[in-house]
Amino acid sequence: MIDFNTTDAIEILGTIAFSISGTFAAVQKRLDPFGVLIIAFVTSIGGGTVRDLLLGDTPVAWMRDVNYCLLILVTCILTLFFKRHIKKFKVTLFLFDSLGLGLFTLVGVQKGVVFGLSPGICVALGTITGCFGGIIRDTLLNTIPLIFRKEIYATACITGGILYFALLRFHLDADVAKIVVIAFIVTIRIIVVKYKLALPKFGY
Amino acid sequence: MIDFNTTDAIEILGTIAFSISGTFAAVQKRLDPFGVLIIAFVTSIGGGTVRDLLLGDTPVAWMRDVNYCLLILVTCILTLFFKRHIKKFKVTLFLFDSLGLGLFTLVGVQKGVVFGLSPGICVALGTITGCFGGIIRDTLLNTIPLIFRKEIYATACITGGILYFALLRFHLDADVAKIVVIAFIVTIRIIVVKYKLALPKFGY
Amino acid sequence: MIDFNTTDAIEILGTIAFSISGTFAAVQKRLDPFGVLIIAFVTSIGGGTVRDLLLGDTPVAWMRDVNYCLLILVTCILTLFFKRHIKKFKVTLFLFDSLGLGLFTLVGVQKGVVFGLSPGICVALGTITGCFGGIIRDTLLNTIPLIFRKEIYATACITGGILYFALLRFHLDADVAKIVVIAFIVTIRIIVVKYKLALPKFGY
Repeated sequence: MIDFNTTDAIEILGTIAFSISGTFAAVQKRLDPFGVLIIAFVTSIGGGTVRDLLLGDTPVAWMRDVNYCLLILVTCILTLFFKRHIKKFKVTLFLFDSLGLGLFTLVGVQKGVVFGLSPGICVALGTITGCFGGIIRDTLLNTIPLIFRKEIYATACITGGILYFALLRFHLDADVAKIVVIAFIVTIRIIVVKYKLALPKFGY
Repeated sequence: MIDFNTTDAIEILGTIAFSISGTFAAVQKRLDPFGVLIIAFVTSIGGGTVRDLLLGDTPVAWMRDVNYCLLILVTCILTLFFKRHIKKFKVTLFLFDSLGLGLFTLVGVQKGVVFGLSPGICVALGTITGCFGGIIRDTLLNTIPLIFRKEIYATACITGGILYFALLRFHLDADVAKIVVIAFIVTIRIIVVKYKLALPKFGY
Repeated sequence: MIDFNTTDAIEILGTIAFSISGTFAAVQKRLDPFGVLIIAFVTSIGGGTVRDLLLGDTPVAWMRDVNYCLLILVTCILTLFFKRHIKKFKVTLFLFDSLGLGLFTLVGVQKGVVFGLSPGICVALGTITGCFGGIIRDTLLNTIPLIFRKEIYATACITGGILYFALLRFHLDADVAKIVVIAFIVTIRIIVVKYKLALPKFGY
């Protein structure tokens, strides 16, 4: 079983999950192979790049470690190879998007803690890290970002981030807290979409 | 009366004005509460964030001072609460957008002066600070940004910024010059929209 | 003849080419003069700005040297003045866009080399520098960026960047290698569009 104990492992899994979701979204829009690769790339690194820019932690992470780029490339190619065998296309895309969201939110929250920021800002950083890859992906593909439409997207990140700090306050083991928070965010997303829940909307 | 003498006061008023305009724009698009909050947030901090990133002044302002985030949150909630009592919805949105534009343009110009940049670049920084919140808001809501359509949007910022340096050259008191420039930008915007003025367009 | 030997000369030519292409794209969308100027501006400086932000090389280049801003302004005005005399409008836009792409890709690759990054990351930086001006331009004008549609856009940058490192490995003179790579990227783009070539697309 993959070791969930370190932030590195979580970041690698999140990169893979978002790379798969980006590849699927680009294939749906019928892009050519390089277009697909670029969308996979920006979906994977978008959130972390915006986070690092806001923190002033430059050159950004993927520039310092070429392995992340290779990981995205390999994941993208493997996804294209295996996509014939996937029947429930939309469901698969959605699951990997949710998984990436949970994993990257935690990575962002933790980086905020490392930089000594207040918990509220850490939750914002986690939300940015989790959501921005998808926002950039959808903006480039010229659709209203998923986050602003029917699904409670950012809400899952924000409540997950708050939960993380609450669990730590109750002296839960940090690694257990991480897994709980990731599972919480993914579960919220799945429940929301399965039962078509939505926050009430404002109208005029 | 609120003290207009300091840059801080201008920044706080600008943040409130853009938070109101962002909330209104999001409600018009029928987003859920968190979507509304996020749009209010990016509209308020978008311009300043782009400015700080370009200057390399990181972590960006709102990360260092959680009070700005609280200010946006409270403004957004109050706006949602009072919106029932507002009849001229579009006019109100427009007025607060114009007010925020005037205030933030000045904040941006002054930050350029503090960084020792040339007047031309300071005017560009002011325009970016004033306009980018609205550009990001409209891009996320998937409409052609207001700035590129019928209203003379950036033009008001640019001429306002130039006016500021002209007034200082004539040895006008700096605080008076600030109020004059803010009033100038807001007035230009109102006149332009009221009388449907537009710069002549190019066609092919 | 203009001196192609230095990076500065390549950067100036690229700035001019993208400023012309941005002006043409904005005129096609019937923007007002300031809108046209802003689109010319972001098309010219967009790629380099994103590159500098990712590298943490701030304040970004155009803020430190007001001459780039003047160059874009003058180019934009001259383009508007001469556009009556241009018959093949789309072809001209396309040619300058391709030229800017070739020139800026090389500028980006070289900046990566100066920062001591690995060749793969340098090629990515070149691609970002070449492509992002056009991406921002098209996103602001609310069209699916050219790069993600029919033309092999990023592909030309990536193969050009790889070619540059290959040529250097075969001990070709650096200045000759630069001209070869620029000509290669522009030629690929022209051939692709002329013969309507495209990479095969994925569908589901």
